[in-house]
Amino acid sequence: MTLPVFDTAAVQKAATSQLVLDTARAALVAHAEGRTSVPPPLHMEFPGADGDCHVKAGWITGAADFTVKIATGFYGNPQAGLASNHGLVCVVSARTGQIRAILDDRGLLTAWRTAAAGALVTHAMARPDAATLAVFGAGEQARLQATWLARLRPVGMVLVHGRSPHRAAALCEELSAHGLPARPASAHEAAAADMIITTTPATAPVLDADQVREGAHVTGIGADMPHKNELPPALFGRAQLIATDDHAQCLDHGDFGHAVRAGAVAEGDDIAAGALLKSPVDRPDNAVTVADLTGVGALDAALASAVLNELLA
Amino acid sequence: MTLPVFDTAAVQKAATSQLVLDTARAALVAHAEGRTSVPPPLHMEFPGADGDCHVKAGWITGAADFTVKIATGFYGNPQAGLASNHGLVCVVSARTGQIRAILDDRGLLTAWRTAAAGALVTHAMARPDAATLAVFGAGEQARLQATWLARLRPVGMVLVHGRSPHRAAALCEELSAHGLPARPASAHEAAAADMIITTTPATAPVLDADQVREGAHVTGIGADMPHKNELPPALFGRAQLIATDDHAQCLDHGDFGHAVRAGAVAEGDDIAAGALLKSPVDRPDNAVTVADLTGVGALDAALASAVLNELLA
Repeated sequence: MTLPVFDTAAVQKAATSQLVLDTARAALVAHAEGRTSVPPPLHMEFPGADGDCHVKAGWITGAADFTVKIATGFYGNPQAGLASNHGLVCVVSARTGQIRAILDDRGLLTAWRTAAAGALVTHAMARPDAATLAVFGAGEQARLQATWLARLRPVGMVLVHGRSPHRAAALCEELSAHGLPARPASAHEAAAADMIITTTPATAPVLDADQVREGAHVTGIGADMPHKNELPPALFGRAQLIATDDHAQCLDHGDFGHAVRAGAVAEGDDIAAGALLKSPVDRPDNAVTVADLTGVGALDAALASAVLNELLA
Repeated sequence: MTLPVFDTAAVQKAATSQLVLDTARAALVAHAEGRTSVPPPLHMEFPGADGDCHVKAGWITGAADFTVKIATGFYGNPQAGLASNHGLVCVVSARTGQIRAILDDRGLLTAWRTAAAGALVTHAMARPDAATLAVFGAGEQARLQATWLARLRPVGMVLVHGRSPHRAAALCEELSAHGLPARPASAHEAAAADMIITTTPATAPVLDADQVREGAHVTGIGADMPHKNELPPALFGRAQLIATDDHAQCLDHGDFGHAVRAGAVAEGDDIAAGALLKSPVDRPDNAVTVADLTGVGALDAALASAVLNELLA
């Protein structure tokens, strides 16, 4: 039997937003309840080509499939007219070890599950009447976080703060063209929004904790290595509710870990983001809430398996 | 562009024995010279299905491609009429991170590079006039080690020692049918052969060091986990030349590690198998020599890349 390979267009068509949101929610809940298996990833460096390769696996315990995801980043590629990132997902039967299919999605599902997780957690933790969203960063995830959140709740205005005014303006145009009012904003103005999502590769905080208003919610999704840092420890110190998608991982290389090491909060001050998706969040109107999302491998498994079942249906 | 997938038949046709031997030899030499990159593998367990998954990556430093290999073993499969082992190899450009192709070879290249490495090292270390080969074990690797060694030098007789007399007899018939005289043998008789290759999953030595004759060579290829052990420490103690395919790996989970921990040899008593393939081995006629091969991930990379280049040529 020939191994089925599905390309990005096929994956994109099968991965409806409802499917992605439902699957991401269920997987985050499963992860919060300890029903996932995520081994330490495999990592290689290619210094001569400014490249790296990460291989991540994940499984929702007891599910029919698990996944092995290969993701490469070669940062000189754009100079040759190529995308920096490539990758694919292998969907493997957890009953027989047979490889069911390859999703040659070039990172699409990773981008979408990251967007869905950010939107779900932000929606669950923000005040019901929160209307203004600020995004820090003007890349693909900034765009996706705004558009996926707007699928869950009305977003009155998107404030975009990017290092490059040109890219921030371009993102605002794109969001507006899709019906989401958006305009560039200073860091100071963006920090005063009702909802804030940071999507940058920053290695120092991108906003000032004092500028975040009472009642606001902040979600950080950019930190994926110990030296990265988007949210200041003082923001965690102000927060009445802190959620992490994976406690150990956020301690190791998330903004939460920076806050703990700075002494702003204690190691046990967070709750599992998945738990908040299961039961409504109890948050005082004037509380500051913070979510630190570093990405959960079990979401890849759940989403790739769900998409493959759609493709084969 | 659609991701090319090559099935087992295509891979088998492209992987001529000359290509496999040349590539394995060059990769072992590169590994001995420190010109390879092999990160710690990723590992998952599926206890409910008696299954596991290993993901291994490898790169010959500076080569155009690297590989990520997924291998599963689900040991209840035969009861359902399925093979226990499945897997594939992704060949990835080390210049751009683009995935060049999938070799859906179901473990074929791993089996062949293991056979080629065993044959190359056994041929290099055995006496030129050694004629009798004993294999311990009667499975696929026992068959492959005998047939691949016979491609490098005349083999007068193969003595097969297996736990199952039935399987040993079947292997002898198969080898004889392919022009290699073979007959079942006791462990005692097999241990007295000119060349010995052990290919078992044993957890205790399969032969007695005293029964190995002066001038003999022994290659162990079965140990792939710390609790496995085929060759007795006393055999290493008798050896005048000990080769390992990867010093650290053989110390960790090879027979050499058992011998070091038993005090039979010192940690620095081995030399790199790849070094022996580059320069002729200086071995006294009556010396006992031993090779401990635990498998080098860089061979996967070199072989898959060479096979892909044949397939695309």
